[in-house]
Amino acid sequence: MAANTYLTGIKPTGDFHLGNYVGAIKPALAAAEGYDTFYFIADYHALNIIKDADELRQSIRSGAATWLACGLDPERTVFYRQSSIPETFELTTILSTLTPKGLMNRAHAYKAARDRNTEAGIAELDSGINMGLYNYPVLMAADILIMEGERVPVGRDQSQHIEYTADIAGYFNHRYGDSYSFPVPKGVIDDSEASILPGTDGRKMSKSYDNHIPLFLPEKKLRKAINRIPTDSTPVEDPKDPDTSIPFQLLTHFADAEKVADVRQRLEAGGMGWGDLKKELFEAVNTELGPKRERYEELMASETELDEILDSGLERARSRARRVLGDVRAAIGID
Amino acid sequence: MAANTYLTGIKPTGDFHLGNYVGAIKPALAAAEGYDTFYFIADYHALNIIKDADELRQSIRSGAATWLACGLDPERTVFYRQSSIPETFELTTILSTLTPKGLMNRAHAYKAARDRNTEAGIAELDSGINMGLYNYPVLMAADILIMEGERVPVGRDQSQHIEYTADIAGYFNHRYGDSYSFPVPKGVIDDSEASILPGTDGRKMSKSYDNHIPLFLPEKKLRKAINRIPTDSTPVEDPKDPDTSIPFQLLTHFADAEKVADVRQRLEAGGMGWGDLKKELFEAVNTELGPKRERYEELMASETELDEILDSGLERARSRARRVLGDVRAAIGID
Repeated sequence: MAANTYLTGIKPTGDFHLGNYVGAIKPALAAAEGYDTFYFIADYHALNIIKDADELRQSIRSGAATWLACGLDPERTVFYRQSSIPETFELTTILSTLTPKGLMNRAHAYKAARDRNTEAGIAELDSGINMGLYNYPVLMAADILIMEGERVPVGRDQSQHIEYTADIAGYFNHRYGDSYSFPVPKGVIDDSEASILPGTDGRKMSKSYDNHIPLFLPEKKLRKAINRIPTDSTPVEDPKDPDTSIPFQLLTHFADAEKVADVRQRLEAGGMGWGDLKKELFEAVNTELGPKRERYEELMASETELDEILDSGLERARSRARRVLGDVRAAIGID
Repeated sequence: MAANTYLTGIKPTGDFHLGNYVGAIKPALAAAEGYDTFYFIADYHALNIIKDADELRQSIRSGAATWLACGLDPERTVFYRQSSIPETFELTTILSTLTPKGLMNRAHAYKAARDRNTEAGIAELDSGINMGLYNYPVLMAADILIMEGERVPVGRDQSQHIEYTADIAGYFNHRYGDSYSFPVPKGVIDDSEASILPGTDGRKMSKSYDNHIPLFLPEKKLRKAINRIPTDSTPVEDPKDPDTSIPFQLLTHFADAEKVADVRQRLEAGGMGWGDLKKELFEAVNTELGPKRERYEELMASETELDEILDSGLERARSRARRVLGDVRAAIGID
């Protein structure tokens, strides 16, 4: 059994924003240090939402390029596409025979979809819900268990997925544990303040609030987006409270401690306008993201580089998946 | 696209009886004449029910040996295990993203399981129902569509499965048909009298009625089982009505027309006792099944022959599955 396997699924739907970078990408890359690390592009999860072939292809490429540009090292980690591991789907079939339907009925994503139907006055609560969404927790369990994942980073609102995976691993282990047992995975929940980035309106940055700044905006557009963050009309010369300023909060995530302390002092002393603050913010964001944006554009422009990178991780991923599925098949009697 | 593909799934749960032979095995083998024919052992369907590894292994072997002994020709047809086609499980994942959950809610097998809970006074209607049972129609659709199955024999009570498969193929074709379309399969429903065998109590032979005679009973036990079929106390010399006699009904399925006409005449004339009729029935059944029983026992005794037969069909099955999945992946944008 592999020791300390750290596994992250990347859902490649839509473009990433600064909040994803601070809240998901950076902490996942940092938390994986020292582990045997697996990252995968969850392209079949995306298929639940994206039914246009070209759009899906583009999303998959963009998701992979984003993580690579942000520092995912394909030499040190195993990086692959979910769809490249057929063992995952066979394991899903196996785990389904052990998973009570009641568990799925209580899944948050499914219940939220039903609630939306209730709110919309739709009598048939399952209306518009496909089996891919409903089965999602079993597929996710298979994604994790096929690699014997032990540590999985999740947002606080997604911790149920890991609990379900642990439950499903438990059903299997209880029934077949004499022959093979899955390691029971644990969620790594990062709920530190450091990983919550405010959006342009002060609420958590999120596409659904329309308060987000895309991750790889070209320089000019990035500057414009930062300049458009609302501020009050306190005159330049007046002292200002950094802790209620959204641009300042953003700055703390991108500038180093020295710069942050310097800006705080200048705001509190008076004489620093919001425009100056936004210039500092732009410089800090652009300094951190500029090289990553270049790398992203390079990866997206190449016809072959992304595929080559994804192919290079594949054999390592498949060899583990094959071993685990082989053990599982022997345990259940399909061998 | 392959022309006229005929596909049958064999659920290897429990031993077969005379009713399965007359009602399913013989008609399926006959109906497949002239088609490009695929038979598979549905071992992952069986996993929903059989959670003991050795029992499952034994059931799979017994199911395969039974069909081969009854005349399934692995040279002329493609014979394989469901679990040997990983493309099926990936296609299940893909089809799930297109299948409305409402369709599964209305599936007969699922509703029957809920009804049993209602009758048992269990408030949680999904109690005891696993996701394998609930997903069964999607997996069955994938079993059929991955081979581009066009004709599928089903009992009248299973015609919903084929309707669902046709629906699911339709969802895919509607969305992605510009790139790839599944042939929409049709059920071949055999509801002729010829395929309904009465059990020892006159109702349809079924394990659930406990009125069945196992298919490959050893000769002595077969004779005993036939002798135990209830008959009335009409004296030997009296005329008898063949059409209300269960042994005579059974005889019509195993003896040739000449023999059946002869026995009918003797019963109606009087002078033929039930014991004589049962002797005729035993001879007819044993003549038809004796060589098949020998072949069955030979296959079950060999350590390797079954595996060799199943392996030999595999490459033909996989090469079709690979082509279909490749076309499907290109259509959806996962390629």
